Amino acid sequence: MRFLLLSFLLILQIPSFSQKPRPRELGIEFGILKTGNLNAITDVPGVKVGHFTLHQGTDIHTGVTAILPIEENIFQNKVPAAIYIGNGFGKLAGYTQVEELGNIETPILLTNTMVVSTAIDALIDFTIQNPENKTVKSVNAVVGETNDGGLNDIRARVLTKENMLEAIASANSGKVAEGNVGAGTGTMSLGFKGGIGTSSRILPISKGGYTVGVLVQSNFGGVLQIGGKPIGQLLGNYKFKNIDKEYEEDGSCMMVVITDAPLNAKNLKRLAARAMLGLSRTGGMAANGSGDYVIALSTAKDLRIAHDSKEMYETFKVLRNNDLDLLFQGVVEATEEAIINSLFAAEDLQGFNGYKAEALPIKTVMELLKK
Amino acid sequence: MRFLLLSFLLILQIPSFSQKPRPRELGIEFGILKTGNLNAITDVPGVKVGHFTLHQGTDIHTGVTAILPIEENIFQNKVPAAIYIGNGFGKLAGYTQVEELGNIETPILLTNTMVVSTAIDALIDFTIQNPENKTVKSVNAVVGETNDGGLNDIRARVLTKENMLEAIASANSGKVAEGNVGAGTGTMSLGFKGGIGTSSRILPISKGGYTVGVLVQSNFGGVLQIGGKPIGQLLGNYKFKNIDKEYEEDGSCMMVVITDAPLNAKNLKRLAARAMLGLSRTGGMAANGSGDYVIALSTAKDLRIAHDSKEMYETFKVLRNNDLDLLFQGVVEATEEAIINSLFAAEDLQGFNGYKAEALPIKTVMELLKK
Amino acid sequence: MRFLLLSFLLILQIPSFSQKPRPRELGIEFGILKTGNLNAITDVPGVKVGHFTLHQGTDIHTGVTAILPIEENIFQNKVPAAIYIGNGFGKLAGYTQVEELGNIETPILLTNTMVVSTAIDALIDFTIQNPENKTVKSVNAVVGETNDGGLNDIRARVLTKENMLEAIASANSGKVAEGNVGAGTGTMSLGFKGGIGTSSRILPISKGGYTVGVLVQSNFGGVLQIGGKPIGQLLGNYKFKNIDKEYEEDGSCMMVVITDAPLNAKNLKRLAARAMLGLSRTGGMAANGSGDYVIALSTAKDLRIAHDSKEMYETFKVLRNNDLDLLFQGVVEATEEAIINSLFAAEDLQGFNGYKAEALPIKTVMELLKK
Amino acid sequence: MRFLLLSFLLILQIPSFSQKPRPRELGIEFGILKTGNLNAITDVPGVKVGHFTLHQGTDIHTGVTAILPIEENIFQNKVPAAIYIGNGFGKLAGYTQVEELGNIETPILLTNTMVVSTAIDALIDFTIQNPENKTVKSVNAVVGETNDGGLNDIRARVLTKENMLEAIASANSGKVAEGNVGAGTGTMSLGFKGGIGTSSRILPISKGGYTVGVLVQSNFGGVLQIGGKPIGQLLGNYKFKNIDKEYEEDGSCMMVVITDAPLNAKNLKRLAARAMLGLSRTGGMAANGSGDYVIALSTAKDLRIAHDSKEMYETFKVLRNNDLDLLFQGVVEATEEAIINSLFAAEDLQGFNGYKAEALPIKTVMELLKK
Repeated sequence: MRFLLLSFLLILQIPSFSQKPRPRELGIEFGILKTGNLNAITDVPGVKVGHFTLHQGTDIHTGVTAILPIEENIFQNKVPAAIYIGNGFGKLAGYTQVEELGNIETPILLTNTMVVSTAIDALIDFTIQNPENKTVKSVNAVVGETNDGGLNDIRARVLTKENMLEAIASANSGKVAEGNVGAGTGTMSLGFKGGIGTSSRILPISKGGYTVGVLVQSNFGGVLQIGGKPIGQLLGNYKFKNIDKEYEEDGSCMMVVITDAPLNAKNLKRLAARAMLGLSRTGGMAANGSGDYVIALSTAKDLRIAHDSKEMYETFKVLRNNDLDLLFQGVVEATEEAIINSLFAAEDLQGFNGYKAEALPIKTVMELLKK
Repeated sequence: MRFLLLSFLLILQIPSFSQKPRPRELGIEFGILKTGNLNAITDVPGVKVGHFTLHQGTDIHTGVTAILPIEENIFQNKVPAAIYIGNGFGKLAGYTQVEELGNIETPILLTNTMVVSTAIDALIDFTIQNPENKTVKSVNAVVGETNDGGLNDIRARVLTKENMLEAIASANSGKVAEGNVGAGTGTMSLGFKGGIGTSSRILPISKGGYTVGVLVQSNFGGVLQIGGKPIGQLLGNYKFKNIDKEYEEDGSCMMVVITDAPLNAKNLKRLAARAMLGLSRTGGMAANGSGDYVIALSTAKDLRIAHDSKEMYETFKVLRNNDLDLLFQGVVEATEEAIINSLFAAEDLQGFNGYKAEALPIKTVMELLKK
Repeated sequence: MRFLLLSFLLILQIPSFSQKPRPRELGIEFGILKTGNLNAITDVPGVKVGHFTLHQGTDIHTGVTAILPIEENIFQNKVPAAIYIGNGFGKLAGYTQVEELGNIETPILLTNTMVVSTAIDALIDFTIQNPENKTVKSVNAVVGETNDGGLNDIRARVLTKENMLEAIASANSGKVAEGNVGAGTGTMSLGFKGGIGTSSRILPISKGGYTVGVLVQSNFGGVLQIGGKPIGQLLGNYKFKNIDKEYEEDGSCMMVVITDAPLNAKNLKRLAARAMLGLSRTGGMAANGSGDYVIALSTAKDLRIAHDSKEMYETFKVLRNNDLDLLFQGVVEATEEAIINSLFAAEDLQGFNGYKAEALPIKTVMELLKK
Repeated sequence: MRFLLLSFLLILQIPSFSQKPRPRELGIEFGILKTGNLNAITDVPGVKVGHFTLHQGTDIHTGVTAILPIEENIFQNKVPAAIYIGNGFGKLAGYTQVEELGNIETPILLTNTMVVSTAIDALIDFTIQNPENKTVKSVNAVVGETNDGGLNDIRARVLTKENMLEAIASANSGKVAEGNVGAGTGTMSLGFKGGIGTSSRILPISKGGYTVGVLVQSNFGGVLQIGGKPIGQLLGNYKFKNIDKEYEEDGSCMMVVITDAPLNAKNLKRLAARAMLGLSRTGGMAANGSGDYVIALSTAKDLRIAHDSKEMYETFKVLRNNDLDLLFQGVVEATEEAIINSLFAAEDLQGFNGYKAEALPIKTVMELLKK
């Protein structure tokens, strides 16, 4: 009995697809490019997303989000990748090796600041327990994080390696839950409850027909803008509203950009840089305390890097520099929309020490936008 | 006679303060912070700006803009500085030494892509001809550029060292001419005639009362937004309007950020990074071919670095990391406004090979904004 | 009984000061500057080093080395710092925040590649369990690693958080054990048994009398040179001896540089870069698979950065750029000597899967050097 | 008459192949890999080098060195490239675009610090005057420099664009003049007369048989080591010989690394980084005032990047990361040897203000090496 009760209290992991409409369904537009079918990072073929969401008692509200870029064993089939640092006040794991070698060899986990180590451990387990990887002795785990310490008792570090592995195991293609789920369970952004958000863009067939998808864990400060309108100011809820006082704490924003366009690591870094431009359009300004990172990778089949190979050479067919602009535009747009999506999907949450984060008042927002 | 005629043809350097109202005068607001008196980079005490504008025949429309950060001999009194690269497809001079040492030792010149060398030469002249610098054998000239080759016969390289020195000599504090002047004479941006623009922000007294000013040479592509509204789309004039066709050529954006707040080079680089967020809010997306650079420096008197000194030590009093956010916000806002200012001030120009750039149709824009 | 026996087998953590003479005691000189008293990183006042060494059964030979830069609570009194990446094929934790903010807020742990996460966890425990840090919700743990998977069953990941904390708890000033101890227990370098090594240099009083100390975890490949002499070649044991065959696996080199000279983060990065020059002089060439990182920090009392402060400003008195050269020279010399010290102190070790690493044959080496 | 006299005074451009033996001819060895036929950067097929050397009166002793990587129009056939900054106190032109795009589109010029602008101008001329480039409006000139202001009246800036173009025009494959020629005419290094030096290494056929060549303009300080032996100390001529006094001025070292191995820009940057390790082995320590840069590029035919192309894609066949180590080793060795070659070839020179630089006393050096 006691066990049942506890587990009820401990884990309410309802696969919570928010019932709330997404901004685009309400008529808000972001940019000039078309979205994919799901308007989600999973529009990129093969990409899977999984969440583990933990509400435990009054004080624990946190989670993990897993992004699996490809269906194959990614350690044996590394993908070209880059990480762009918008503002490096963060504990992201894996940066220097991605920078040096230009590839990623594990799924990506997003979680809270104080359990990055647990997530690294989980990714090492995930990798070395695969029989195909039985001789592997070195794993560069890629883990992003933001600080949910406002709503979550982050010092308690309750998330386990098993929770992390569960997020990976539950990952699937298809619709992605947004808002208070996974790594976004306890985050706040731009004065409101933040969370997970996602969006995508499709290039015209004449330009390759590629998809670029973005997933964000929104947890940063600024003056909320929607469609350029200063909604944060109009609602009286924004970072600098009392300019003479001390600033409030800021979190961060983790952004994951995935495309099936064939790009090498150098151009993936340039692609990643454009996500910061999308963040700006929501009112973000990369505060001092914000750890704003963008992880970008290409799933193009021809660009996989074999871990072991008897070949001395690799052959890559990639887009020319001159053909990057639509992808750049797509990243700006999808990042802006993913962040706004996270705010629209998020719900009120009372958490650690009774602190209450309010969701964006969508009805009021829509009225303001129509004025 | 011949001299008079020639000079008439060669140089129409009317100190052209645009008679057109600035956006703020028309009621457009950018952000939450107050501007300085002039809403210009020259609100930062001691900063001077000078333009040399060259219209010559039908094909030459170019110029130089000089920014003098301090009144003293800057070579002997170097200022802490950083350069941030938004997109490095450009020929800016001086980057690596500023990155290594964290200071700037010359005025800053902005001009066109093909005469950066001439501008370097001018800055060396300017430096070594000062009797105080008579033993100087090494000068790190800082020159920014964008490509005005659409309206200007850039291959002709007509600007001379003397023109550059004239821009420096004419620099003064006070109001800054915007639009088709100096380095902005022949530039285009976001589908319209671009040019020079400037803006500033003031921190509250409780936060030090510092000023941060921005000056831009706008010459980049994207989908123009004003106050978040997709004006470029509404006017049918923007980078991707025919998405299946080849993209048009893009130029670049040079941004200069100056503050009297006491910041070291590391934090000036962080400050500079925020200018890209301001650019994004105007619809910029840092296209592949765009050379987007931000030069940032502090004029704080206590932070000057003596070229020669018998002391082993330097003492610096700087703002703590925790107190940077309002400055970051100020840079985002002032960059956005400076770019929009450049478009409002610019005027129609027919140039090289008969190409005609139209100024932003302000009346129509204002109507669209009011809808 | 069995328990006792097991624990005997499990942990032989004898504080093993190698009885073998150090190279300098044998008359080998490195450079032109004087060493500190101990010729160790602990010559920098306040610096403490602790090792946890684990030999367990036949297959486990690994450990942890802790470096405590200052006596005070380092989280509340952060030290200016930088990390230089010689070759980024590694899993070092903490890089991006050190790069962004220019400081370090935890002790430094060095260990093996697969337990970096455990070391992060230990540093978070160490930090948040300090009553002075009871409100801390974000900790940037700095952990270096190399791969001891040749001699150690690294996939077993046996080192615990408690082992890591024991290394910290046992740290002390004074003589530093070298060779097969702590993080160097199972490492190999330049064809021989590697390990921990340390060295220091002292500036003349007229130049401030500062100390710079280096500690290395040597685990990299190349052609061993001692005093420039190609000892590796002469002994027939070096990375490329069979040039047509596949290369052997390489490990990495972690280098920690500490000085009491007052340097800001920018100049600490430049200081760190010089350690790679020292590595080169031992025959290292930063192989593709080598994760070569240099962590540098200053313990200068005036440069501590308070975690919390009501002040808006910080005042720093630092060495001028022009006065860095002797420190640069010191780092080159001390890194070279620290690496050679690690090889002289290391001892034969038979480990994982019966693999045997031989210590440098010192007698033969000395004969070769005298020729 | 006057013309003849002047030209006699102005230009003594004797194609000065030093008659002095190269170190290798004297039995000094550097590393384990074989050199190419010429032991020069021109061992890489297609590479051409040209010098323009200027001795004028008593005070002018300077010049230009041109390196033409490929026979084709390099603007239309860009080569993958990277620039590594060992220490960025320098005025090298072209860095940021090479970093962003990963290619080089002009020949490389090396010259003195104060005429970098003239060299940029020359490279623009060279490029746009080629009829194939008649629509080109943007040229990223790559120019390296060191400061020869000790022996040369560098403030006079006498080198002209025509001199620069002459260096390009005179470039040829085959033997490369070393010592007091071209950009090395007035340089000093490690206490002695420096200059131009070059060397190369060849990989075994089983590893592709590639060549890597290095050319240096040596002008930096330190404690000269030859084969690891502290020759500078033994000769009593080195940077820190009077440790309590002020340091002497330092120059810099420009290094150009060219290979026909197929490497992308990311791996060319890693290759470039290894040149600093070679510099270290000669006693260099990258002094504060030293501008130490490495320009690296690949001439592999398959990797050319067309300036204009109707294709959306490029296909590249490159070496795998795992196959880089021998090239890394080759760069270390060839850089060390190229620097020592520059010292052996250089000759006594009395220059500006009567300052006299002595060549390395080769006979004495050889005796010291044999001890």
